[in-house]
Amino acid sequence: MRVETQRYTERFGSVRLNEVQKDLELDSGRAGAAHPLENIAVLKIVEEASKDFEEKMAIAIPIKNEKLKLFEGVISGIPHDCLIIVVSNSQTKRVDRFRMERDALNQYCNFTRRSALIIHQKDPVLAEALAKSGYASLLGEDGLVKDGKAEGMIVAILLASLIKKSYIGFIDADNYFPGSVWEYVKCYAAGFSLAKSPYSMVRILWHYKPKVSEGMFFRKLGRVSEVTNKHINSLISFNTGFETEIIRTANAGEHAMSLRLAELLPYATGYAVETQELVSIFEEFGGVLPLAQSTVAKRGVEIFQFETRNPHLHEDRGSTEHLENDMLLPSLSAIYHSPLCDKTIKENIIKELVSRGILKEKGKPLRPRQYKPPKEVDLKKFQEVMPENLTPYSALAED
Amino acid sequence: MRVETQRYTERFGSVRLNEVQKDLELDSGRAGAAHPLENIAVLKIVEEASKDFEEKMAIAIPIKNEKLKLFEGVISGIPHDCLIIVVSNSQTKRVDRFRMERDALNQYCNFTRRSALIIHQKDPVLAEALAKSGYASLLGEDGLVKDGKAEGMIVAILLASLIKKSYIGFIDADNYFPGSVWEYVKCYAAGFSLAKSPYSMVRILWHYKPKVSEGMFFRKLGRVSEVTNKHINSLISFNTGFETEIIRTANAGEHAMSLRLAELLPYATGYAVETQELVSIFEEFGGVLPLAQSTVAKRGVEIFQFETRNPHLHEDRGSTEHLENDMLLPSLSAIYHSPLCDKTIKENIIKELVSRGILKEKGKPLRPRQYKPPKEVDLKKFQEVMPENLTPYSALAED
Repeated sequence: MRVETQRYTERFGSVRLNEVQKDLELDSGRAGAAHPLENIAVLKIVEEASKDFEEKMAIAIPIKNEKLKLFEGVISGIPHDCLIIVVSNSQTKRVDRFRMERDALNQYCNFTRRSALIIHQKDPVLAEALAKSGYASLLGEDGLVKDGKAEGMIVAILLASLIKKSYIGFIDADNYFPGSVWEYVKCYAAGFSLAKSPYSMVRILWHYKPKVSEGMFFRKLGRVSEVTNKHINSLISFNTGFETEIIRTANAGEHAMSLRLAELLPYATGYAVETQELVSIFEEFGGVLPLAQSTVAKRGVEIFQFETRNPHLHEDRGSTEHLENDMLLPSLSAIYHSPLCDKTIKENIIKELVSRGILKEKGKPLRPRQYKPPKEVDLKKFQEVMPENLTPYSALAED
Repeated sequence: MRVETQRYTERFGSVRLNEVQKDLELDSGRAGAAHPLENIAVLKIVEEASKDFEEKMAIAIPIKNEKLKLFEGVISGIPHDCLIIVVSNSQTKRVDRFRMERDALNQYCNFTRRSALIIHQKDPVLAEALAKSGYASLLGEDGLVKDGKAEGMIVAILLASLIKKSYIGFIDADNYFPGSVWEYVKCYAAGFSLAKSPYSMVRILWHYKPKVSEGMFFRKLGRVSEVTNKHINSLISFNTGFETEIIRTANAGEHAMSLRLAELLPYATGYAVETQELVSIFEEFGGVLPLAQSTVAKRGVEIFQFETRNPHLHEDRGSTEHLENDMLLPSLSAIYHSPLCDKTIKENIIKELVSRGILKEKGKPLRPRQYKPPKEVDLKKFQEVMPENLTPYSALAED
C-alpha cells in the first residue's frame, strides 16, 4: 500500500502522537527499487514488509450474537498470515449460536488452511485460569468472565501473549465489507512497520461512515467521536500548553497495539475502553504525573492514526439516543476522571452531557470501572491452567 | 487470494464455460510451499502470480459525469501494476468535468507514481484515427465518437492494444468501495492465471448487491441479471441438448478479457454489450454455426465466473422501471436476434418483455446496433494518427 508520510508529530511527554495519515493506494504493486521520483510525502509499504508484521499479529474479533454472514465476511478479509482469535459471548442455550460460529470458523479454516482460536467468554477453564493468575476482578459473581467487549479484549490480549504474538489488532464482527477489514489489517501492519518504539499503537479513522438509514450520506466522523476528540484534545492542550486537534480517533474500535504496550495498560469497561487507552497512555507516559514505567518512557510510546480508503459500513444499531448515552457518557467519563483533567475541562464535559440530556443538572459522570494491566497477571499460572498450545480452542479442533 | 477450484466445466463447441468460483480469502498470505493438507477444492493464488498478470493488464474505466469522490476511490483500489485507462464522456462545457477528472487523476498519479491514460470520448484526434483506420461506424454525424459506454469500451480496447497490453478489464466508476475494485482485479488476474487458452474471459458475480434505498437488504442477484441469465442459459440448452444453469453473469459490467479475445468480438451498443459478448462467443465458437476463426476454435475460448467476497455497492440510479427498460430490453434483444436462438426461446423472450410491459403485444425487440470486431481495424493506421506512446493522454502530461 501507499500511505502519507507522517507530516507532523506532536509530543506529550514521551508519547509521540502522529497526525492522521491517509491510505492512498490499496495495492502498491511489486516490491523493488523505489521510483526515482517517489514523492517524499508518500511511503510505499511493500507486501513483504507488511507480511512480516502480519505473521506476528493476532487479530481479535469480539463477537456477540452477530449475524453469521457478517462474521464469515469479516474473517475472509483478514490476511492469512494473521492468527485469528475469536472471543465469543454469544448465547449457548436454546439456539447455540456459539456452536454455529465455531462450525463456520472450522469450515472456513479447513478450506483455507489457516489458524484460528475460538473461545467462549464464559469458558470455565478460562475463568479458573484467570482466578489462579490473579485476575479475579474480571470474573462475575458466577465465577465466570463478566459480560462486555472490554473483558473479551483483555482475554484476547492474554491469549495472544500466551501464544507469543507481538501485536494484537481488534476488529468488530459486524462489518459489511471484507475489503475494509483487509485494509484495517494493512494499516495496522503499516503503522508497526513505521514505529521506532516497541510500544506502539495504530488507530483507524474511517474515510467515510455512510449512514444507510437516510439513503446514503457519507459522514466524515460519527457525532460521538467528534465530541470525544474535542475533549481529549483539550486534555492534551491543557497539559502541554499548546492547543491541538491531533487526536481524531478517540473512539476507534478498530485499533491495534504491540503486545508490550497492550500488557502495560489498564482497561476500562464498556464503551470507555478505547478512550481510556489513550487517557492511560497520557497519564503514564505524558510526563505530568510520576512516570510509572521509566524504561518504557525512555523508548517512548508511538501512536499512529490511519485514514482508510474504504468507507466503514456496519450494522446500524438503534437510535442516536442509544448511541449517545451508551457511548458518549463512558468515553467522556474516562477523560473526566483522569488526574490530568483540570476544572475547566471537567466543567465543559458536564456542560456537554447536560446539554445533551445525558446527565442531570448538577450530576457527575460515574468513574468507569477499570481492570488492572495484563502485565500484573501471573501469566505462568494462567498458562498452567490453560490447555497446552490452546489446542482445544483451535478452530480445527475435533469435538 | 484463495478461490474455489473449477468444480465443473460445461462445453459449448470449443467454448469452456466454468461454473461460478467463489473467492474464499482475500489475502492468502506469503507464497511458499502449498500446505501439505491443502484442500483439493481450493486454489491458492499467490500475490506474485497475480502481479504477473496485473503488469500485463489495462483497467478501463468508462466515466460520464460521475461524482469525483467515487472516481478517486475506484482508482485507489486498482492495483498499482495495472495501467489505468479512463475513457471519459463527461461534460466539458460550462463546468468542465473532464478537466476535473484529469486533474484528480494527475494528482493521484503524481503521488503514487503510477501510470494512467485519460482520453475524452469526443477527442478529435481519436476520431480522426478511427476514421482513417476503418472504424468510421463508431463515429456520429459530428465526426466524433458516439455517446455510450460500449463505444468507450471499444476505444479502451484499441488503446490497450496500441500500448501492447495482453489483458483488459472493465470497472465502473460509480463504485463506493475501493476494496471491491481491488478484489475485481484480483479475480481477473486469478482467472487469467487459470486459463489454458489465450482466448479467455473473466466475469464477476457479486456476492451480494445491497439495496440501500430500503434500509439494507442483501440481494444475491439483480432482477435484470436473473432474467437475462435464464434466457441465455436456454440458448445454450437448446443448442447443446442439455439443460443448464451455468451462466450467472450475463449482465456483468465488471469483466475482463485477454486482448486476443477482445479484438475478435463484435460489440453491441448500450446495455446489450455484456450479454452480446457471450452471444457472439457462442455464435463464433459454439460449433453450431460455421466457425469463423478456426485457429481460435482449436485453442478454445475459456470463460470464468468469480463470485466476490465483497458486496457490490454502487450509486443507485432511479427506479426499477428505468432499469428494466434500459437494461433488460437490449440484453434480451441480443439473445433474440442471435441465429442460435430458436422459435421457442424467441417466444419466451417476447412473453417476458410483454408481461413486464416493456414491449407491446405483438411487438418485436429491435436488433441492437453492432460494431465490427477491433481486429478488422487497421491498427497501424490508427497508430499513425494517434500521438506516439499516447504521451499527451498520460495522466502526468503537462498542459
